[in-house]
This record gives sequence, C-alpha cells and structure tokens, in this order.
Amino acid sequence: MRAEIITIGDEILIGQIIDTNSSWLGQELSKMGIQVVHRTSVSDNAQAIINALNSAKLRADVIITTGGLGPTKDDITKHTFTNYFNTELILNQEVLTWVRDIFKRRKLPMVDSNNAQAMVPKNCEVLFNRSGTAPGMWFDEEGKIFISMPGVPFEMKVIFEEQCIPRLHKRFSLPVIIHRTILTCNIGESFLAQKIETIENNLPPHIKLAYLPSVGMVRLRLSGTHSHYATLKEEIDEIIATLYSTIAEHIYGEENDSLEHVVGVLLKSLNMTLSTAESCTGGYISHLITSIPGSSSYYMGSIISYSNEVKINELGVSSQILNTNGAVSEACIIQMAEGVRKKLNTDYAIATSGIAGPDGGTPDKPVGTVWIAVSGKKGTIAKQFNMGDHRERTIHRSAIQGLDMLRKMLLEDI
Amino acid sequence: MRAEIITIGDEILIGQIIDTNSSWLGQELSKMGIQVVHRTSVSDNAQAIINALNSAKLRADVIITTGGLGPTKDDITKHTFTNYFNTELILNQEVLTWVRDIFKRRKLPMVDSNNAQAMVPKNCEVLFNRSGTAPGMWFDEEGKIFISMPGVPFEMKVIFEEQCIPRLHKRFSLPVIIHRTILTCNIGESFLAQKIETIENNLPPHIKLAYLPSVGMVRLRLSGTHSHYATLKEEIDEIIATLYSTIAEHIYGEENDSLEHVVGVLLKSLNMTLSTAESCTGGYISHLITSIPGSSSYYMGSIISYSNEVKINELGVSSQILNTNGAVSEACIIQMAEGVRKKLNTDYAIATSGIAGPDGGTPDKPVGTVWIAVSGKKGTIAKQFNMGDHRERTIHRSAIQGLDMLRKMLLEDI
Repeated sequence: MRAEIITIGDEILIGQIIDTNSSWLGQELSKMGIQVVHRTSVSDNAQAIINALNSAKLRADVIITTGGLGPTKDDITKHTFTNYFNTELILNQEVLTWVRDIFKRRKLPMVDSNNAQAMVPKNCEVLFNRSGTAPGMWFDEEGKIFISMPGVPFEMKVIFEEQCIPRLHKRFSLPVIIHRTILTCNIGESFLAQKIETIENNLPPHIKLAYLPSVGMVRLRLSGTHSHYATLKEEIDEIIATLYSTIAEHIYGEENDSLEHVVGVLLKSLNMTLSTAESCTGGYISHLITSIPGSSSYYMGSIISYSNEVKINELGVSSQILNTNGAVSEACIIQMAEGVRKKLNTDYAIATSGIAGPDGGTPDKPVGTVWIAVSGKKGTIAKQFNMGDHRERTIHRSAIQGLDMLRKMLLEDI
Repeated sequence: MRAEIITIGDEILIGQIIDTNSSWLGQELSKMGIQVVHRTSVSDNAQAIINALNSAKLRADVIITTGGLGPTKDDITKHTFTNYFNTELILNQEVLTWVRDIFKRRKLPMVDSNNAQAMVPKNCEVLFNRSGTAPGMWFDEEGKIFISMPGVPFEMKVIFEEQCIPRLHKRFSLPVIIHRTILTCNIGESFLAQKIETIENNLPPHIKLAYLPSVGMVRLRLSGTHSHYATLKEEIDEIIATLYSTIAEHIYGEENDSLEHVVGVLLKSLNMTLSTAESCTGGYISHLITSIPGSSSYYMGSIISYSNEVKINELGVSSQILNTNGAVSEACIIQMAEGVRKKLNTDYAIATSGIAGPDGGTPDKPVGTVWIAVSGKKGTIAKQFNMGDHRERTIHRSAIQGLDMLRKMLLEDI
C-alpha cells in the first residue's frame, strides 16, 4: 500500500511556515504499514493542485492533501476537488448545524463565508471536524482514496486519527506491524547507544530500532513486521523487557506519555501535593504540569521569582545568601525549594535558578549554569547542570531535569 | 525565475525528521525574487530522484536538491546526478585536501568512503563546503541550474549563502519581489476578511494577500512582484497603511514579531515593571514573557495560584468572594490582578482565571469560560471570554488575550 502526501499553500513554498503536517502524516502512515513514496508541496493554484493529484495517482493508492480549506478567497482546495471529479458542491446539513453551533456557543455572528463551509463536493464522504469549521473530505474514485484535510495541524490530526485511520483499515488489508516506543530522558543518544549496543546487535532482521531525539529526551522505537501478530508481539515484549533491565533509570514512560503526566500520576497515587519556585525556567515547569487535565488536584501553584526581591519576600531566601553566593547557587536553590514548599503548604516542591542567557554569564558561572532542587518530606536534593548556551533549550532541559528529579524522588518515596 | 526544491531521504518521508531545509530555502529564494513553484520529497532511490528532476525541469529554472550526499551506502544523490547527466566521476584535488585536513584535525582515521567524497561529476562546479566533508555541486545544463547540497541544515545553509546566492545573482537577472506581513490577534480569519474586504477586492493583480492563521492569531501577508522595486514598495506601503487605518486595534506587530516581545519593548520604553497572577493559564503567560532575552529587566515574577488557598493567602482574594462568586468571576480576577501588582510591587499586572477543562464546567460557567484582568496605575480592566472546549487552546488563547489587553493598556498610558 503506497501513499503520497500533498500539502497546499503558498506559505509552505515561501517557507513562512514549516510543513509539520507531512512529517506527522508520514509517521502515522508508516506505523500503519502504508509506505509514503512521495511528498509534494504546491501553491494555492488550481492547476498546480490538479497536476499534483494526477502525478500522485500514478504512484500511490492513497493521496492525502492538507490545506486550502479555510473560509477565505485564497483557499481553493474544495473547489479544485469539485472540478477534478467533475461534480458539484451540495449543502451538508450536519456540517451547517455544527458550524452554526460553534458560532452560537462562542456568541459570534456568522458571515457568508462560514455558511459556505457546509458546502461539500457531491461525491465525497464528509470527515467530521470536531475541532474546527472546515470539514475534511474522503473520495473513493478510480480505485484510489483521496483525502482532503484542513492545514491547521490540530484539526488535521484529530480528523486523521478519528476519521481516516479506521476508514483506511476498513478499505485496505494492511500488513501486521507493531511499534513500541519507550521514552528516556537526560541521557544523550550516543551514550544510550553504547549502553544498549548488545541488544541492538542481536535484533532479528524483521525488528528495527530507531533513535528519535528531541531536547533532553530520546525516544527508542522498535518496529517489527511479521505474518503472525502474537509471535511478533512476544518477540517485541521480550526486547522491551531487556531494555528496561538495562537502562531502567533513564526510562520515564512509553508511547506518547509525557514526564509531566507521569509525575502527575505518581503524585495522585501517593495523594501528595506539589508546588514550584521557578526562576530561570520562568513558569515553563508550571505550564507543563498544568497542561495535564486534572492537575489542580495535586498542583497548588508556583512562585515565579524572576527578581531577587521576589526570592527574598515571597520565598524567604536570605539576602545574605543572594549577596554572598548569588541567586544561582546551591544555598539559594535549597532555600527556594524549601521556601515554596512551606509557603504553599505542599508535600513536594521543585525549584530552578540559572543563567538562561544570552547575557548574565560570568567566567565562574557561564551561560547555561542551572541549579535545580527538589524537596520532599525526607529532605531536599540540589544539583548543578550546564545546559549549554541556547536560551530556549536551557529552559526546556531544566524543566525536564526538574520533573525527572521529582519523578525519582517520588519513586523512592512510594 | 522559478525554482523547485527537492529533498532526498527516506527519513523525511517516514516523518522521522521534519524538513526544515525546504522552508529555509523557500524563504531565501523568495527574498531573492525567485518564485518557489513546487517542493518535493523523495526516497533514497535513483529512479525516484531522476523522475523528480525530470518533472522539476518542466516547471522550474533552478532545481535545488538537498540530501543523499553522505559517505554511506544509502546516499546515492551524487551517482544519480552523474548518470543523469551521462558523465563520469573525477577526483577533485581541492576537496580531497580539505577532507584529509578535517580528519587530521579531528585525529580520526580516513576510510575509503571518505576519500570517495572527493570524487565529483565531471560537468559540475564544486560548491565548497567549509562545514563538512560532502561538497555541494552546481550544474548548468540545458539552460537550467541544478544545485545539489548536503541535507545537514547548517552545512546546507552555509553553502547556499556563500556559494549559491552570488552565483544565482550572476547567472540570472532577478525580478523584484516584496513580502510584508502584519500580525493580528484576537480576531478570527473570517471577521478579518470581512473588515478588509474592500482592500482585498481592490488589490492589483500583481499583489496577493494571504491569511495565515494560528491559535488566537492571523498573519496577513502581502506579496508583490514587479519590474521596479521603488514602485512596488510604494504600492505595498500604501496598502499596509490602509490596513493599519482599517484594523489598527487588531494589529500588534509586523514580520516575525511576537506579542510577548512587543509588550516587553513597550514596558522597557516606559521603564515599567510587570507581574502576573495565573490560574487557568498555569504559568504559560509567564513562560512566554520570560522566553524573551532581557525580560528580567521588566518582569518581576508571578504567583501561579492554581488552588484557592494560594489565591487567598498569596494574592489576598477574599474567601467570601470565592464562596459567593467563585474563582472564575469578575470580583475574583480583579482582586487577583490588583493583589499581585501590590504584592510583587509592579506597575502592571495580568491575571487569568478560568475553566480550561475538560472537567469543571457548569451550566452557568461552561468549560472555556475565562476571566482576564490587566491592572495598571490608572485602574483595572476585566473581561470575560469563552475560549472553547480544548484545554491547550484555551490556555494559549487566554495568554494571547492577556498580553494583548496589557498591550492596549500600555499604548494608552504612553
């Protein structure tokens, strides 16, 4: 089974946005055992879209387009598909009701272009878009599947997951593929590779291992193909077990889990509460924690102490320590963690203080120097790191370290 | 002048890496007045590469490929070009010396595959790669330019900037293209379209308007082509001025600016300080503000009050108001904004309180209900919103609203 992805929009060609849809779709299709043979990006131009569809049809069984479905004049994908299949637009009552409800709920007036979103090509099956107003479309023509989805990534993802994956499984008989991903943090790709070298060298040819690095994290993905599901599952389970016994301390979760979710689950199971005191991470740890639904049951809040005054007045850091040791020091970070834990009356606390840069570095404490502490009922642990000289990455890495230090403390306290 | 970008590599098709090379090249080519008409990604397969080159030749004058130039077996771009132009590989002494020097400097042994990097197609001009071992190649054949560069982004960028841009200017007489982008927030795409309908309808055919929406924001991009730079610039300046006079209140910046940067610049110019009190946004506003280098000069910190206790104890919200009006109310949000402004002793403050969901909604206050307040020396402004039923988007939209309300207050205070 072969697929081609076509992303539509001038903004992609001129590089104003990065085409993340193609990558995400490439991953999802590969996971299903559908081979992506080609990717194309074309402008908002009917002939260019038609040419791309015609070329794709020669290479692939499934042709997926994203983009050009908005309510404005430069969005021409729907009309192009209508012409391409020599059909007409008809009103879809379900979509109209949905669009009207959205505007009603948000107490916004409808304009003509919004009503027009309920018009769809006669030969398509509507792919309901519960995150937006532009419906997706599924065409089954000439033995090929053509899918059209909005370009907004979160709308596209929900439509693909909920509407397209089940339909593709129903329409085609796809091979047996199993993917398992384990998630590691705070260990580099090459160190990880060294630790699991023997496991990797002994993999059978039908099971592959991929390293997928991102800031502070490496995902390890095993992908296997086989004629028999149960045999493959058993093989992969065994390799996963060996990985766990080899690099247990670095593994924080599996599949699409996040560190902030894992920490939340642990806090909930212990019936414990958390607060944070953030300086260099500036609220990013708090943002990650509160991105988890239900986090209000264990997360009480944070004192973001970007200035020394806030560190002194709100967290009880001694001004003597700030003068002598500085804000980026072991003494300060311990007072911050213990201060916020006491002040917000929580069982645990995370604190960060560092020099995110680009300014503020000294020979003693260069840009990237970060102190992180976690505090619990059995004590406080503080560590120093050098996170490098890139502001955004330093913030992200520090957040991951702080959450991981808390995760380890929670595991010991269970 | 028309260009096509071809990125080569299985890892792109399966989505293991995001193709940032195409976006970057798209930007650079557009800036030079070269129109990118098509982008393609193909696998490490000779026939797929040849097909892509043949198709590109029909559409474009400049065909740029990246990827497949490494020393390993799956890197076949150079051999494919050699066959494509029916030529042979010859040794390039300059490249050989360079590669040998690199290995000598790094104290690494050379293997045969490294020596092979000095072999280049006879008909190419070598594009020297001072960041790596694989040279780029420039072919001038059949009146078209074919460029092959490595896929590693920083190597590709240096080669393109230092070697390709000057050659392209020398080889072609390039037209004038001007892009201008203005940034709007807190107005939907369709409402914006309605407000500027007349402007859009009166655009000359050589100037195009594009809507680029993201959560809470729409970028409006004007793109014009013309034979004469000054004339085009004047035309576009005039349209921009009309846009400003039509939708001034929604415009927060231009080009790659961000709302948090704009707010920071205003605070700096006024020599004023800021604090935040975040409930439903959980630190996201603070994270955005502190993502700007130098924000510590105006941002003092935040009280993230995810629990009612923190609202009462740290922000001075009255427990009577929490019992009677609830945490998501006008009375509470005003006390939060004024409370943090006083507590952290700042000139301005932003506060948020809402129901991000998925739980916690009531018929009176459904999921998505958010109160936001900004407080300054002249008073406090509070507004209620419905941000929809998607947790992440509610957090993002609320942050954008909060920053925009502050921006407007700052502009009035200037």
